[in-house]
Amino acid sequence: MADWAKLGAKTKREVLLARAFLAAVAEPPAPALAGFVARHGPQRVVEAIQRGKAPPDVMAEVEARCEDVSAEQLLDATEVAGARLVVPEDDEWPHSAFEDLAGAREVGLPEVAEPIALWVRGRADLATALDQAVAVVGARAASGYGEHVSAEFGHGLAQAGFTVVSGAAYGIDGAAHRGALAAGGRTVAFLACGVDVDYPAGHGRLLRAVAEQGAVVSEYPPGTSPRKHRFLVRNRLIAASGRAAVVVEAGARSGAGNTANTADSLGRPVLAVPGPITSKNSVGCHGMVRSGRAVLVTSIEEVVEAVSPIGSPGPVETVGTHRRTDGLKPHAQRLHDSLRGMEGASADELARDCGLPLGEVRALLPELEMSGFAVRSDRGWSVAR
Amino acid sequence: MADWAKLGAKTKREVLLARAFLAAVAEPPAPALAGFVARHGPQRVVEAIQRGKAPPDVMAEVEARCEDVSAEQLLDATEVAGARLVVPEDDEWPHSAFEDLAGAREVGLPEVAEPIALWVRGRADLATALDQAVAVVGARAASGYGEHVSAEFGHGLAQAGFTVVSGAAYGIDGAAHRGALAAGGRTVAFLACGVDVDYPAGHGRLLRAVAEQGAVVSEYPPGTSPRKHRFLVRNRLIAASGRAAVVVEAGARSGAGNTANTADSLGRPVLAVPGPITSKNSVGCHGMVRSGRAVLVTSIEEVVEAVSPIGSPGPVETVGTHRRTDGLKPHAQRLHDSLRGMEGASADELARDCGLPLGEVRALLPELEMSGFAVRSDRGWSVAR
Repeated sequence: MADWAKLGAKTKREVLLARAFLAAVAEPPAPALAGFVARHGPQRVVEAIQRGKAPPDVMAEVEARCEDVSAEQLLDATEVAGARLVVPEDDEWPHSAFEDLAGAREVGLPEVAEPIALWVRGRADLATALDQAVAVVGARAASGYGEHVSAEFGHGLAQAGFTVVSGAAYGIDGAAHRGALAAGGRTVAFLACGVDVDYPAGHGRLLRAVAEQGAVVSEYPPGTSPRKHRFLVRNRLIAASGRAAVVVEAGARSGAGNTANTADSLGRPVLAVPGPITSKNSVGCHGMVRSGRAVLVTSIEEVVEAVSPIGSPGPVETVGTHRRTDGLKPHAQRLHDSLRGMEGASADELARDCGLPLGEVRALLPELEMSGFAVRSDRGWSVAR
Repeated sequence: MADWAKLGAKTKREVLLARAFLAAVAEPPAPALAGFVARHGPQRVVEAIQRGKAPPDVMAEVEARCEDVSAEQLLDATEVAGARLVVPEDDEWPHSAFEDLAGAREVGLPEVAEPIALWVRGRADLATALDQAVAVVGARAASGYGEHVSAEFGHGLAQAGFTVVSGAAYGIDGAAHRGALAAGGRTVAFLACGVDVDYPAGHGRLLRAVAEQGAVVSEYPPGTSPRKHRFLVRNRLIAASGRAAVVVEAGARSGAGNTANTADSLGRPVLAVPGPITSKNSVGCHGMVRSGRAVLVTSIEEVVEAVSPIGSPGPVETVGTHRRTDGLKPHAQRLHDSLRGMEGASADELARDCGLPLGEVRALLPELEMSGFAVRSDRGWSVAR
């Protein structure tokens, strides 16, 4: 693709108009249109559509709206919404995040076709923001536990330098964004409606804060209302944007489960946070771990480990606490156990109690005394307190 | 081995005396002694020890106590304790549970050597009780959540016909026993002290109830006090007795983790119950799942599935709830989403909203009306409520 910075203003404008038209004319995902655009470029595809000369599968995707869409009006509305249109020709386009969507479309997963263009509201450069990102998703009707964990993960991942990607919904999504914001980090929200639509209604302030420290992104033109199926369609952008998808809480059947499946089919690790088995909010997470679709994670460190290049150091198992007697050999520990259970015992009594040969007990006792585990008195041997 | 029922009373008495002596003279596990007994039988081994003619590794295991142990006194004390001595020659010996311990000793795991004999207090026949058993173990300092889950699992497994095996400790163990008792099922407690010792002190009543509906079992002679290392040694009997070991709650470093590792090395499935990642009581369970040592389980059905013969039916994933619109094809669902977002819309408006060709929308609307998803009025199309 040509270097965006070197293109003249007129050419840029032509590309933007063409992409705006194409993004608005078909309901995403539009696999036939996306493939046609990938092969011929946006301007030629617009021409073909307007002359009714595009292939039938493309025409079926654009037929309903092609009379109504005005690219000029779309770019005006974009400006009014305080947004910009980001296109694949632009340096700001997050190629590394989305090229797997095009690849999946080509190998027969039309439902995850790449977006034609993205409307972006926010300060962050999208390519930079999504270069090192982790998706954190989960149930809207989350538990207090789930919201707490999501906020902690959002905070910790942002502190570790990752952009937190989510869907701005109530519950887990909102908590993840808020955690990242509180850490002063970057966060990106992908919407199932226009970037100028405050949805959910109670998250208007949150969305403005996300735009301040990151970006609010949508493949739907400004003014587009949310629709049920758009949430599922939008999920593929979240799944593709993260190096991994962390599912904090998910019921038996959930949008987060859908995002996780898409992430999995795109080759992104799916990480699931466990919870009480008595909570319906963790049923989906546990099911993913049991079926092998997700890896169980319990800390930010484990998430970072999962998205770090293979071979980078990181402990898998939680380290237990160290006890003073850990250094003792098995027989010395056994003798120490007997000392703990007796008071002023002879070597003979200790040998019978722990079942070790008397000679060995006589040799071990001074060793335990020297290392501060046993004390000798007139009454006999006792454990050192 | 000879048929126990056909042996004369005198021979039985000889075997019991020999086994009682051998069980008491060495501190378990006594791998050299166990191997020597497996090769030569208990009576000949007692003779060899008393003449000082046993191999040096065996003599080292028995040296400290061989002057003090009186087999006759042990059998008297057994009777006084209301217990019986169960030996491998006896039909009541749970061969299927313990033969893997002998096998592990032979291939170089001396720390899990088989017991020489077992003291049993309780009504249940030990072989029958342990024929279909599941070990349920976990932290002493359990959370309310952990105790609740443990009691539920104990109850459900007992109802499903399994004997619940545990260690009678406070917390998870006690809750598992109590759950099984409440279900009127069978439960077996393995102790790290004599079967006549109420340990922990607050569980005296529980242990009597376990003996009523199952068995209280120990490889330590009556009167033996608990010692720290004896809990770890006892754990191998719990691990070997269950077809699987369920860990309900375990900290980063715990006895339950030790039981799980032993179960794993004996080829028993280890099943771990997840919990909140904010609880230190679940750190061990989560670590086992992450390292692949344990399978995550969230219900009694999943435990039963894990211990059932391969090929028996059982769903792995929790089934989600079914929605009315599940039967609709993708485009019909998309149109239905648009109907939900509009009120009294024309086919044309609906086509533009959902991005489907007008002809297709016109064909789908009557279908949705017939199946009760859409209604037509003077104002246009709306969703059926």
